[in-house]
Amino acid sequence: MVEDMKAYWETKRALVEEYLDLWVPSEETPPSRLHQAVRYSLFAGGKRIRPVLALVAAEVVGGEDVQALPVACGIEMIHTYSLIHDDLPAMDDDDFRRGKPTCHRVFGEALAILAGDALLTMAFQVMGDLSLYPPGVEPIRVLKAVKEVALAAGPLGMVGGQVVDLEMEGKAHQREAEEALEWIHTHKTARMIEVSLKAGALVAGGEGEVDVLEAYGRCIGLAFQVVDDILGCQGDREKLGKPVGRDVERGKLTYPALYGIEASLKRARDLVEEALDLLRPLGERAWFLRELGRYVVERDR
Amino acid sequence: MVEDMKAYWETKRALVEEYLDLWVPSEETPPSRLHQAVRYSLFAGGKRIRPVLALVAAEVVGGEDVQALPVACGIEMIHTYSLIHDDLPAMDDDDFRRGKPTCHRVFGEALAILAGDALLTMAFQVMGDLSLYPPGVEPIRVLKAVKEVALAAGPLGMVGGQVVDLEMEGKAHQREAEEALEWIHTHKTARMIEVSLKAGALVAGGEGEVDVLEAYGRCIGLAFQVVDDILGCQGDREKLGKPVGRDVERGKLTYPALYGIEASLKRARDLVEEALDLLRPLGERAWFLRELGRYVVERDR
Repeated sequence: MVEDMKAYWETKRALVEEYLDLWVPSEETPPSRLHQAVRYSLFAGGKRIRPVLALVAAEVVGGEDVQALPVACGIEMIHTYSLIHDDLPAMDDDDFRRGKPTCHRVFGEALAILAGDALLTMAFQVMGDLSLYPPGVEPIRVLKAVKEVALAAGPLGMVGGQVVDLEMEGKAHQREAEEALEWIHTHKTARMIEVSLKAGALVAGGEGEVDVLEAYGRCIGLAFQVVDDILGCQGDREKLGKPVGRDVERGKLTYPALYGIEASLKRARDLVEEALDLLRPLGERAWFLRELGRYVVERDR
Repeated sequence: MVEDMKAYWETKRALVEEYLDLWVPSEETPPSRLHQAVRYSLFAGGKRIRPVLALVAAEVVGGEDVQALPVACGIEMIHTYSLIHDDLPAMDDDDFRRGKPTCHRVFGEALAILAGDALLTMAFQVMGDLSLYPPGVEPIRVLKAVKEVALAAGPLGMVGGQVVDLEMEGKAHQREAEEALEWIHTHKTARMIEVSLKAGALVAGGEGEVDVLEAYGRCIGLAFQVVDDILGCQGDREKLGKPVGRDVERGKLTYPALYGIEASLKRARDLVEEALDLLRPLGERAWFLRELGRYVVERDR
């Protein structure tokens, strides 16, 4: 990451951390075990890519980042809930995430399910609360954002992607695998990244740029997942905070499993090129999104 | 139930069924197993109390029932998700619900968790979609309803209630039991019934009546849960569609377990009296809510 980008990222990220902390009940709030579980996962050191993208999108369309804060925090809560549920024994059965034991390992399965449910519900409470937006944000734009985020997170988006991901486990060599893989990545990862940009732009008054940002988000989201798959089979355990090689063990459908590392890297680079092309009409305003595109394929965690 | 009430109920209920069917993706929509699981639980013969109350509240405040349809359907989706997750092996571990095998018994645990997640997410998609409301419903009222429903369903409401319910299992005779029981019922059951009335009234333009309806909902909700507990230990298995006596087996904290059947029935009747008193300022407009209050303590399923 170049220095400018790092500093900009950190400013946005700090804003997200501050407001997540403010808007999520403290650990002492009854039932306190529930709120401990919620906060354990929400503040486990996530990169905050999605909420930062929402704030950036608000600025790219000429608004202020704080206009997108409720949407940004809501999206991060949804992302966190999805990780908690994905890690459950009935799903991916993962013991570690970001270098720490997963939520259900610490709090038990029941509480992990409920902490996920709580986060998903709170996400809509925060996104739907007009009093959390700066004056001037129109209710109708907030509603549009709420609906778009729900669409992206639901059965036609992220939840649907996780279902097919589980269904395809151990079937990595079947004929339908290529199509399924594209479907999984589009739905499970790219949709939420797309909608982070779209929803952030919508609440901040974006018009014509919204579609461009959404299309950029799709490319970046897909590239991000391809790189995730590569790191998952040959990354650095320390940096990733989770075991490497688990996908292969489980026969998970991944890019490297289907096409090999080289072809996967090429695919990620092509997607980023496509993303950068899309940004052209936005000019200098989109400098950060351009840098971010490059970072996605170069990251090691 | 008196005849007038039955007919009125059935009209509202039919409206809810029709729109749930319209707004929830068909079983063929990919991923089809997910949508099968969602529909299996959503159309398993629920009484639709909460959504009907939302439609009724809209009429009581002088609006039209259709103004509250998205809110009503969203609330029923949330109710259904909560049943699916509560029945999971990690939670109450129930095999039957409404006379049918529970979602996870038919579709497996992973899909049941995801079907619940899908329903919770779709609830906010439907409630937040302005195009599903009749013209004239103000976006700001829709937002208020969304926020209130999220508050009632989240960690400070229903999810919190389920957490304490699980925590108190096997501890029915401890000193803190009475307080905990009140807390569980208020949060796990009453909050969603309260908010059904409140949200229905809000979107339909309700002002001063909203608080009255909410307070009525609280009393009715608590009475409903007390009667549920009584039926759970001495009801008719056939009518209930689930085994009787499970709460006692598990050492669940319930009204009859703590106070006995007689005192529980008295408590339910007192709550309904309180509810009916609250309705007085609403006069004839509230006839159905009055009848419903009586039904709550007389029902056998």
